[in-house]
Amino acid sequence: MLLYPGMTSLDFVGPQHMFSSLMGAQVHHIAKSMAPVTSDSKLTLLPTTTLKRAPRDLDILFVPGGGDGTLAAMADPELLAFLADRGSRAKWVTSVCTGSLVLGAAGLLKGYKATSHWASRSLLKDAGAIETEGRVVRDRNRITGAGVSAGLDLGLTLVGMLRDQAYAETVQLLAEYAPEPPFNAGSPRTAPEAVKQMTEGMFPDFNERARTTLARQVKLRRT
Amino acid sequence: MLLYPGMTSLDFVGPQHMFSSLMGAQVHHIAKSMAPVTSDSKLTLLPTTTLKRAPRDLDILFVPGGGDGTLAAMADPELLAFLADRGSRAKWVTSVCTGSLVLGAAGLLKGYKATSHWASRSLLKDAGAIETEGRVVRDRNRITGAGVSAGLDLGLTLVGMLRDQAYAETVQLLAEYAPEPPFNAGSPRTAPEAVKQMTEGMFPDFNERARTTLARQVKLRRT
Repeated sequence: MLLYPGMTSLDFVGPQHMFSSLMGAQVHHIAKSMAPVTSDSKLTLLPTTTLKRAPRDLDILFVPGGGDGTLAAMADPELLAFLADRGSRAKWVTSVCTGSLVLGAAGLLKGYKATSHWASRSLLKDAGAIETEGRVVRDRNRITGAGVSAGLDLGLTLVGMLRDQAYAETVQLLAEYAPEPPFNAGSPRTAPEAVKQMTEGMFPDFNERARTTLARQVKLRRT
Repeated sequence: MLLYPGMTSLDFVGPQHMFSSLMGAQVHHIAKSMAPVTSDSKLTLLPTTTLKRAPRDLDILFVPGGGDGTLAAMADPELLAFLADRGSRAKWVTSVCTGSLVLGAAGLLKGYKATSHWASRSLLKDAGAIETEGRVVRDRNRITGAGVSAGLDLGLTLVGMLRDQAYAETVQLLAEYAPEPPFNAGSPRTAPEAVKQMTEGMFPDFNERARTTLARQVKLRRT
């Protein structure tokens, strides 16, 4: 599981909760160095290992999303080289939210169906991926989740795949994951129009910069 | 927001994501010392302040749950004194999962309706609370959530109360909180009987020790 400054901590912790419920599994929190990593909500997490020391072969490679920090990750040659390398051998290559744009920048989604945060999903095309709407989208060994809170669904889906349904149901019951959102605005299909427009208004700058970054990474890989 | 060793990180990060979306709000991650705090899933978080240095007056006091670490918190005089003090002035006294047992140990739920993780909810009676089934239970200024993942619902509920519905809906849409659990086992009412029995089998030891601890704290407060 990749940690980087400015990532969204809930993107990371939803899946981390689920993956760490796989008895016998070793979950690595991997960052560029052992220095503390602060998320976009100002929560500071400690890595357990670094890009250089992380195991060569991983069952699951996971990348969280975020805002400005994600843009920086998408342009970071050391980080992208790590993802391209580990992603080439990982059994499952996974992400939540705009983490899929980081996978895309690393060249890991070319020709794969993938999803992302709804407001940035169209950018997947700029990474050569096949933009696909869905809470958790699987194409061969790529599994990408929608925005932020989709990490719980993605994590639980993987627990079911790596163990079995009864195991995943036990994890779900332990986490009392029977959600009851107090409002019905979690998707652009159900949110009030004014709320949708206000939220969309937050994304043009991020999307423009992400598009430029993806174009540069695609070009760099061609040369 | 209280941090303590062995707490469940998802209990903490769900509400932390929502609270930190309140523009202008200052979110404190409060621990006994500034030393890193490791959760039950082995995620290590850094506090931003300590029990001694935390502001006297808090809008929201929040306590996450967990397993063995929660039992330790329920028996920690310094921690309980902090909660009793801040809880006496906080506008909202809140918890997720077995965090309500810590509030109960601090004497903050006596005579209040409250909930907890479904498998430990009956222990609230031992803290003088009125055991109440519900995803998010409010009684006056006490707001308690059910197990682990209920923190997202509790956090979003509080955002709606502290701002307004449109603000909370925007936060919900940003987090794409339109959950689609891949299984339907998140509640003991919907989980397969075998899954429910296996999960219940994990709790007798915790519940017995929690009951003893609550009895001791209630007795200590009487003397």
